[in-house]
Amino acid sequence: MTSTPAATGPVTLAVIPGDGIGQEVTAEALKVLEVASPAGVTFEQTRYDLGAERYLATGEVLPDTVLGEIREHDAILLGAVGGKPNDPNLPPGILERGLLLRLRFELDHYVNLRPSRIFPGVTSPLSRDVLGDDEVDFVVVREGTEGPYTGNGGALRVGTPAEVATEVSVNTAYGVERVVRDAFARAEKRPRKKLTLVHKTNVLVHAGAVWWRLTQQVAAEHPDVTVDYMHIDAAMIHMTTNPQRFDVIVTDNLFGDIITDLAGAISGGIGLAASGNINPDRTAPSMFEPVHGSAPDIAGQQIADPTAAILSTALLLDHLGHPEAAARIEDAVLADLAERGTARRRTPEVGDAVAKRVAG
Amino acid sequence: MTSTPAATGPVTLAVIPGDGIGQEVTAEALKVLEVASPAGVTFEQTRYDLGAERYLATGEVLPDTVLGEIREHDAILLGAVGGKPNDPNLPPGILERGLLLRLRFELDHYVNLRPSRIFPGVTSPLSRDVLGDDEVDFVVVREGTEGPYTGNGGALRVGTPAEVATEVSVNTAYGVERVVRDAFARAEKRPRKKLTLVHKTNVLVHAGAVWWRLTQQVAAEHPDVTVDYMHIDAAMIHMTTNPQRFDVIVTDNLFGDIITDLAGAISGGIGLAASGNINPDRTAPSMFEPVHGSAPDIAGQQIADPTAAILSTALLLDHLGHPEAAARIEDAVLADLAERGTARRRTPEVGDAVAKRVAG
Ligand SMILES: CC(C)[C@H](C(=O)O)[C@@H](O)C(=O)O
Ligand SMILES: CC(C)[C@H](C(=O)O)[C@@H](O)C(=O)O
Repeated sequence: MTSTPAATGPVTLAVIPGDGIGQEVTAEALKVLEVASPAGVTFEQTRYDLGAERYLATGEVLPDTVLGEIREHDAILLGAVGGKPNDPNLPPGILERGLLLRLRFELDHYVNLRPSRIFPGVTSPLSRDVLGDDEVDFVVVREGTEGPYTGNGGALRVGTPAEVATEVSVNTAYGVERVVRDAFARAEKRPRKKLTLVHKTNVLVHAGAVWWRLTQQVAAEHPDVTVDYMHIDAAMIHMTTNPQRFDVIVTDNLFGDIITDLAGAISGGIGLAASGNINPDRTAPSMFEPVHGSAPDIAGQQIADPTAAILSTALLLDHLGHPEAAARIEDAVLADLAERGTARRRTPEVGDAVAKRVAG
Repeated sequence: MTSTPAATGPVTLAVIPGDGIGQEVTAEALKVLEVASPAGVTFEQTRYDLGAERYLATGEVLPDTVLGEIREHDAILLGAVGGKPNDPNLPPGILERGLLLRLRFELDHYVNLRPSRIFPGVTSPLSRDVLGDDEVDFVVVREGTEGPYTGNGGALRVGTPAEVATEVSVNTAYGVERVVRDAFARAEKRPRKKLTLVHKTNVLVHAGAVWWRLTQQVAAEHPDVTVDYMHIDAAMIHMTTNPQRFDVIVTDNLFGDIITDLAGAISGGIGLAASGNINPDRTAPSMFEPVHGSAPDIAGQQIADPTAAILSTALLLDHLGHPEAAARIEDAVLADLAERGTARRRTPEVGDAVAKRVAG
């Protein structure tokens, strides 16, 4: 988390609506982004049609030339990618790895930022007894460029009874230290100044040792941040029985994937969960996306909740140095959710309502 | 899950109470086991003092001679192991790996069986809206002898900024097929006959492929079992918003660790979660233990809930071919929980109450 120079004038934005509801929610996110933009800031959008449709039509996932173009932008807004489940023409995981993870890795998005709040008026699957009166408001800083997500590993004697397949989690001091530093910087800026390392150091001893050592080391430079440690399995229990205790969580790529879906679920569903794939060094554009997928089952009906996509534009504005504009979006969403109650509205209705609040 | 020859006459039982509340809950479990034993079956117990205390006194974790003796028993009952957190004389994870995981690996406990039910009268952290009227009653079949738990991997340039640490998840067709077969056999015996594979095949492609292939392959032999697949992150959402949908879950060692703590939490806390580390081929004794740890903070006060340890003896009796005796314990626990309500009772009170119900 480096200090943020505010972007002014024209900001170039690569927009990848993707598949399914990705298209629908992105339209609403852009609506809100436009009205929220601070005076003098304009977004020059380039749309990239990437995703299942493109792959099925052309066999292309993310051509190098397209990646090169995207790289020249100031930021990326992504909807969701993924085709119909079990489409025989769509090898499983090809878009996730070839598009989503490739962007995260190539653009060095080492901070995968996923805030969770239980907004007033939102229904959590947790009971009133668990929720109590204390706020649930934490952020997961998930490592985004290494760990078990590198694709390292392989298989031998595939398809035979003697098959052996390995997955290698790669953890470097370089990669761990920078994300831990980012997490501490975020903890410093939050009122509670608390950081929880989540890992499984008692079993994954090699990786665990480097996460543990670097967390201790960076902690020494932040005496005002309270640090604790939790195994990933214990974190499941705390997340469902006392989520209020979390402030900043820092964790590896896979544990972060798992815990943020749980966090999304307990804070009212991943229809509300936004994320930023952030390159804090600004050597490449950061990418903002809802945590949810393309939901082919409800696509095209304009019934998806665009709130997560809208909140992702708040993270985008914050990253571009416009925290007040980001706060305006968050406040508008908060008010909208409180008012919305259990009424189900159509995708554009939500976008319009939030945009209207932001505007005025 | 091979067919079960009923053990008769003297059954040799290695008892490892372990540390902290492990001692207290094991005493109650043995109380119940004694009264539940079918006519003609007697348990000849040998106690093994293994755990933090032994290690701190002697430096020994699990001497080979002790392992050799334990191996000669018909079954093992374990309480919990683990010393005070941050004890400088207790290297982190040494007992977990040197004792618990070593037993699981050496005795080929490839089925780590963890049933979850929300018992009537028990408070779940999930809301009434989520719980509804349908029963939550599923079992996780967690692989116990490979995956990311092998300790494979290592580190280079430890303690320097150039450190790189790897963890290797090892997945063999041999290891995956046998646990998948066990899970299907269990699904066959359950009324709903449903099996869900949980993995992360879209990212962990090498390991994912072998889990996927073998699940499909064994599924073909079980046309009456309904099979579905869920990514581990999506499983977090379903577990907290619709746990009723699960029947049998089969998954790898690490995902199983994570999902069973979540399952324990939503079904009323790991004070109720029992587990069996099972060697279905009976080439070595199986081991039964509560999912919870040694809880040094409340040890010695006789306030720990022994229910998980007691339910573990039901799994033990079932494994030894005495399903009726197992059912008697489960029914007694069920009645006890329904009656207990929110009253807090001391450890021996719970053991006594359940034993009395089983006896009478
Ligand atoms: C789609 C998948 C590759 C991705 C991940 O595992 O990171 C998703 O689950 C997420 O959390 O953004
Ligand atoms: C103590 C630890 C090594 C163990 C595991 O990770 O398997 C525990 O969490 C469990 O689930 O039994």
